[in-house]
Amino acid sequence: MFPDAFEKVAAALQRLPGVGAKTAQRYVFSLMQMGDEVKDVAESIAALAKLHRCPHCGFLTDEELCSFCKDKDRDPTRIMVVAYDQDVAAIEKTNGYKGLYHVLNGVISSAKGIYPEELNMDTLFDRLDGVHEVIIATPFTMDGEMTALYLDRLLKDKEVEVTRLAHGLPMGASLDYADEFTLLQALDHRRSLEEEK
Amino acid sequence: MFPDAFEKVAAALQRLPGVGAKTAQRYVFSLMQMGDEVKDVAESIAALAKLHRCPHCGFLTDEELCSFCKDKDRDPTRIMVVAYDQDVAAIEKTNGYKGLYHVLNGVISSAKGIYPEELNMDTLFDRLDGVHEVIIATPFTMDGEMTALYLDRLLKDKEVEVTRLAHGLPMGASLDYADEFTLLQALDHRRSLEEEK
Repeated sequence: MFPDAFEKVAAALQRLPGVGAKTAQRYVFSLMQMGDEVKDVAESIAALAKLHRCPHCGFLTDEELCSFCKDKDRDPTRIMVVAYDQDVAAIEKTNGYKGLYHVLNGVISSAKGIYPEELNMDTLFDRLDGVHEVIIATPFTMDGEMTALYLDRLLKDKEVEVTRLAHGLPMGASLDYADEFTLLQALDHRRSLEEEK
Repeated sequence: MFPDAFEKVAAALQRLPGVGAKTAQRYVFSLMQMGDEVKDVAESIAALAKLHRCPHCGFLTDEELCSFCKDKDRDPTRIMVVAYDQDVAAIEKTNGYKGLYHVLNGVISSAKGIYPEELNMDTLFDRLDGVHEVIIATPFTMDGEMTALYLDRLLKDKEVEVTRLAHGLPMGASLDYADEFTLLQALDHRRSLEEEK
């Protein structure tokens, strides 16, 4: 019923996460309201195909190395291992980390059949020269924990300190809404007030 | 932090209705997972700029006339006036209407400063030759009602029957959750069971 171009875009948008037929239609109408600007949008979407992963750390880039690996101001003695590109963005927002990253591009998952070979893991071990600390920052989920333990085991023989992000109560959490596991972690890893200073 | 192409697409997607920074980012990652197909998506989005409105009825088309106006099997003696393209899709899904459409592309709204001149209304009156019935199917909202009344007044002098979609309880509605106005309409326009047969 709608013109071909319309239906094609609607079908493509329905492949985005959480987008159904109705939402896709709304998006197409919204795109059409952009008028000639829609061509710029199309061009930048086409340019996504040129993105690739940094050969050092696995983060997205359109150049030879990613913005972190080519930045001389970052501390090259620290590498934070994360599962996804988005996690890099989350850590960067804190402004509290100036080292390098390593993006696994997933986590080990027996349920989904994802094994270490399919992750960007091997290249991590080629980067350890001169590195003092590897911070494992995989998600705090079953699969994320599995991945962290696996990495920890492999890194044990290397001359590098392996650390993990702290687990505990998040900001704004009330104790009676926290799950037991989080509470246990918060209790086990409690710190003396002296230490905080 | 992310490559330019990534940030550009994320910014563009944030202009879609209800899409914030986080969702836009998820959409970009999802687009990237399409691999080379993303170029087809970009191409079809670019093709949206070529769409225009049918000079007869105002519906979207990429040809001279829209799919309805050039369809000889549709009943040319009936025209249904709707506010938006989406409404045509909704009516078509019912499979209960075989006449033509007229898309106003909006409704009169004093709040938003939308006056009849800005709507696709004039062309409706050029189409009335040989038309027996004009079905007003504007949305059942304040502005939609205003638009319906305005059209009704203009069509009064023409030799054409003017009808409106029925108002009443929607399928699945329980009486105690229906608003008073809907209930009043359902009561005022109650039909004898004889009539239904």
